[in-house]
Amino acid sequence: MTRITDEFALLEELRALCPLEAAGVRVANGDDAAVWQPPFGTELVATTDMLVENGHFRRTTASWEDIGYKAVAVNYSDLAAMAAQPVGVLCAVALPADFSRESALSLYRGIGSALRRYGGVLLGGDTVRSEAGVQINVTALGTVRTGAAVCRSGARPGEKIVLSRPTGWATLGLACTETGKREPQWALQAFLRPVPELAAAQVLRAAGATSLNDISDGLSSELAEIATASGVGMVIEAARLPREDELAAAAAELGIEAEAAVLHGGEDFALVGTLPAQAAVPAGMYEIGYTTTEPGVRLLRDGVAEELPACGYNHFRRKA
Amino acid sequence: MTRITDEFALLEELRALCPLEAAGVRVANGDDAAVWQPPFGTELVATTDMLVENGHFRRTTASWEDIGYKAVAVNYSDLAAMAAQPVGVLCAVALPADFSRESALSLYRGIGSALRRYGGVLLGGDTVRSEAGVQINVTALGTVRTGAAVCRSGARPGEKIVLSRPTGWATLGLACTETGKREPQWALQAFLRPVPELAAAQVLRAAGATSLNDISDGLSSELAEIATASGVGMVIEAARLPREDELAAAAAELGIEAEAAVLHGGEDFALVGTLPAQAAVPAGMYEIGYTTTEPGVRLLRDGVAEELPACGYNHFRRKA
Repeated sequence: MTRITDEFALLEELRALCPLEAAGVRVANGDDAAVWQPPFGTELVATTDMLVENGHFRRTTASWEDIGYKAVAVNYSDLAAMAAQPVGVLCAVALPADFSRESALSLYRGIGSALRRYGGVLLGGDTVRSEAGVQINVTALGTVRTGAAVCRSGARPGEKIVLSRPTGWATLGLACTETGKREPQWALQAFLRPVPELAAAQVLRAAGATSLNDISDGLSSELAEIATASGVGMVIEAARLPREDELAAAAAELGIEAEAAVLHGGEDFALVGTLPAQAAVPAGMYEIGYTTTEPGVRLLRDGVAEELPACGYNHFRRKA
Repeated sequence: MTRITDEFALLEELRALCPLEAAGVRVANGDDAAVWQPPFGTELVATTDMLVENGHFRRTTASWEDIGYKAVAVNYSDLAAMAAQPVGVLCAVALPADFSRESALSLYRGIGSALRRYGGVLLGGDTVRSEAGVQINVTALGTVRTGAAVCRSGARPGEKIVLSRPTGWATLGLACTETGKREPQWALQAFLRPVPELAAAQVLRAAGATSLNDISDGLSSELAEIATASGVGMVIEAARLPREDELAAAAAELGIEAEAAVLHGGEDFALVGTLPAQAAVPAGMYEIGYTTTEPGVRLLRDGVAEELPACGYNHFRRKA
């Protein structure tokens, strides 16, 4: 284990682990700021997320490579939720004095790996000393054709509500890491290496999506956000929610209520949104309900509609 | 003192303290990401800085409003160092569980105040719970006419080295806060409310600046960065460094060597750069030396040139 003695020397090593060059990028990293020419006819999309050790991740249950990878992926998920394509990231990390050079390299190997998989370059960053624990801030920049961003506020009554892929797996994955289980692999993967829905977003936009949200806090929360921002109500049909036998089995083994994981579990990073009534639901995606004029989000089960509470994650909410 | 119980409700209050609307900004805050149309013929400039409590600031020596203000100002200084104009910021803050609502509002009042003074909107952000202390990450976005960004690497031998304003005051200001002195006011102001040189950058670019750096780590460090990136040497003439009687007097009172503060003190956020030999030095700025073909940065005093060591701040450097 090697201690970090020189920030500037370390930065050079970290940069070398990430893609740095792309069309339109005039200056990436190593100057005061990155300079980049957005293509003609595009708008810029920008989002930022701070990840705090022991709040968002634990070094005992994820590798530094997983953590770096996820820090990029969760930001790319926000780009996907606007139907944007990634350009790159700026990464600021605060590392404690006893953090090893090897761990820092591992963190950036994860960042570089996500950038290579989903596209984009390391545009810039900052490396500072933390007082306690590791904090990672990623700002992701992307582009979208001018006027083509899909916001939360565009849903209208009488539209289809569409989910891009099944949810609930990340909740099981989190439970696995907390109990030391190394399977099911699919759940661990969903939690440790989430896939931002960049391609699904393009498909949904092409299908005419009027609103989109990525599921970071939980399906119920994201639905409520769209409903509120758009001024519509929603009916979710319980029978149309994706049901997976593997998920039910894994949930039972972990002592988790499968439907709660599907409806309220966070960090799945699937997309949920709305499509006009006449639009075809893209192959492999799920139509799970419809929008209404009556406000509120309801769950319809066996012909009975009940309010679906938004139980997503809220960093400052104290449990009763 | 009120505890923070709801992240989403707090975010609404924090947003209300900042400018949110500007030409070209289609979506700012409250969706998954900001969407913004850069003006035709411009390039995007992006930079990020993480500020850590007790590393970069202390709540005992600065108000939360000062801290928020400075978090924006230091990022805008990086935009200035590229000769860019600000568009806005994304702010991610990690706050401990016992952080008060009032302090959070004060922090964002400072952020809003800097945005109003120097231009730009709050494009987005994130508010999370920290394990210990406050961490603030600001990403600043700006624009520059295509091809007009001024990098560190453009200096050529035989050019003038120009400083936009006197340095050293922030070092005195830091010493004041650490010893509880409330004056000189100028020094405190320089440290707590630094002015990003956005206007000076435009003047220097118009004058033909071939390289620019903002002084975050110290004049000697920033000179060395330009020299290395440009592949030139530098001679700084001691007699041409700005000498201010007030600075000398204040330094003496604080037991600080004035010339060390001027040459190596951090966080002054003046600009230093190079101008072609035939260019006029803008009014109010200082020509402090010249570039050479011989590598290295030297300080010329009474006809004797000595190596000028780069003693700037390095977060992971351990003092011998």
